[in-house]
Amino acid sequence: MAIRTRGAAAPRDSVLSHTMAIIESIPNISEGRRPDVVERIVVAIRETPGIRVLDHSSDASHNRSVITLVGGGSSVKNAILALYAAAVPAIDLRSHSGEHPRVGAVDVVPLVPIEGVTMAECVALARDVGAAVAQRFGIPVYLYEEASEHPLRKNLEDIRRGEFEGLAAKMATPGWAPDFGPGTPHESAGATVIGARMPLIAYNINLDTDRIDVARKIAAAIRHSSGGLRYVKAMAVKLEDRNLAQVSINLTNYQKTPVHRVFDMVAREAARYGVAVIESEVIGLIPAAALTSAAEHYLQLERFSAAQILENKLRGE
Amino acid sequence: MAIRTRGAAAPRDSVLSHTMAIIESIPNISEGRRPDVVERIVVAIRETPGIRVLDHSSDASHNRSVITLVGGGSSVKNAILALYAAAVPAIDLRSHSGEHPRVGAVDVVPLVPIEGVTMAECVALARDVGAAVAQRFGIPVYLYEEASEHPLRKNLEDIRRGEFEGLAAKMATPGWAPDFGPGTPHESAGATVIGARMPLIAYNINLDTDRIDVARKIAAAIRHSSGGLRYVKAMAVKLEDRNLAQVSINLTNYQKTPVHRVFDMVAREAARYGVAVIESEVIGLIPAAALTSAAEHYLQLERFSAAQILENKLRGE
Repeated sequence: MAIRTRGAAAPRDSVLSHTMAIIESIPNISEGRRPDVVERIVVAIRETPGIRVLDHSSDASHNRSVITLVGGGSSVKNAILALYAAAVPAIDLRSHSGEHPRVGAVDVVPLVPIEGVTMAECVALARDVGAAVAQRFGIPVYLYEEASEHPLRKNLEDIRRGEFEGLAAKMATPGWAPDFGPGTPHESAGATVIGARMPLIAYNINLDTDRIDVARKIAAAIRHSSGGLRYVKAMAVKLEDRNLAQVSINLTNYQKTPVHRVFDMVAREAARYGVAVIESEVIGLIPAAALTSAAEHYLQLERFSAAQILENKLRGE
Repeated sequence: MAIRTRGAAAPRDSVLSHTMAIIESIPNISEGRRPDVVERIVVAIRETPGIRVLDHSSDASHNRSVITLVGGGSSVKNAILALYAAAVPAIDLRSHSGEHPRVGAVDVVPLVPIEGVTMAECVALARDVGAAVAQRFGIPVYLYEEASEHPLRKNLEDIRRGEFEGLAAKMATPGWAPDFGPGTPHESAGATVIGARMPLIAYNINLDTDRIDVARKIAAAIRHSSGGLRYVKAMAVKLEDRNLAQVSINLTNYQKTPVHRVFDMVAREAARYGVAVIESEVIGLIPAAALTSAAEHYLQLERFSAAQILENKLRGE
């Protein structure tokens, strides 16, 4: 059998360095009922040089919109500052209501490393953007997830607890001085949360049973909050139309808790109840590396580098 | 758990259509001892607009060189014609010797669909290039693999049998008129073989045994020629330095015979001899879809489309 080699493979760490840095940001703003306001904010982002807006969607009952943008580091910083400049004068939380918890007019701005950029660089960018937002707009800024150095302020839920209405009291308690900006809320915009995190994978596993209690026990077994895997959030869902129980999963760091380990653990737990896994499903997007890593695992693939993926080679240099 | 959607996924068939067509060609020329000649041929290819030369390597004992180039359809045609224009006057098979079988100065030119292009389009390109080569250089052209309509002329080995030295006699026998060009060999360049095929994956599986006979039995069980899977070529190799037996595999169509099916079959056959699989290994390059398909298989992933891979989305439109 001929051995095919076509030049040396790049070292694993530099696999993605042939492409320019791509950071994804998914700002959540507290406006989902006035399309003209949302549109002006989206336009301000889209007109930033070097930025692509991949998607935006609004939810009227949540009164909230989510915008997905990508670009290099300095472009992303400019786009986020343009977002605040457009959103802060237009959104007043004193007259805002909606089902979704929120602490700010611009509620949360995650930065996600996608290609050619490290988590450490995204953390540095989060700090840089946070300082600029506090200085230009006078809004208190909390860093979260990887960008936070406070163990109790990593989780978005913890920072947001009490919401805009409870913010002034919360900020006056020990440990809740913001990372940047004033020690009291901005009168109409509240506070804002900026941070860096891994891409989130939404992943469901369907069981060959209608027993929601089995899905609940499995969800409890695998999720971090009740003793399971570190980067797993999970709950049970009944698929009424198919009469199936589902384990619905958010994977917050697929590099440290890989998809295949979650799948195998769910299948093993299900077997304990005599239940089989019918199928799994990715909702939305998944990084290529999460799939490659599953293939490496099951195929027992050794000495493999992403530089061996034909498409990476074609786009290389 | 929130359901994340970011716009509709593209239909599966159009997954790659957002990128321009990329065809790979890996011409093999019968010159591996005169670096200046090889270099002139490589330069002629590299200077073709729209072409990237990914790699080239020469083997003196084979007296043969392999060049890997990529580009769109018309660029690839121009590059291949430039290759013949440079190679035909420089290589004379009447004074050529080497270990590797060969029938032409330009021995074989495969065209491989990579992205945004179908196999049917590569077959059409092979016919177009073949007709042009015959017309411009007066060389008989045999089509092979997917481009051939003759059942007995699909395999390169069958076309090459008898080599340059036996070519005149072979061409005079029934069934061996070329697809394009004269009915007799070109006096110095012989004939040439042009065709279209899937990307080849070189894939090895190492067994936890030093028994080469076990690897031989497994290779015989899985390969097409002795009753196994349609697109598998396999042989046993002893890794002397590690004292292990290896099943060394070429997978000639990973879409129809996927990597994971080959892996599982080898593991099952090995178990029959009480032998475990230690690891597998990809030599050289592998298309992303071959890995994605393994992940889909083992994770029982349904309703998945390559448009859900984050990197495809980022490069999209």
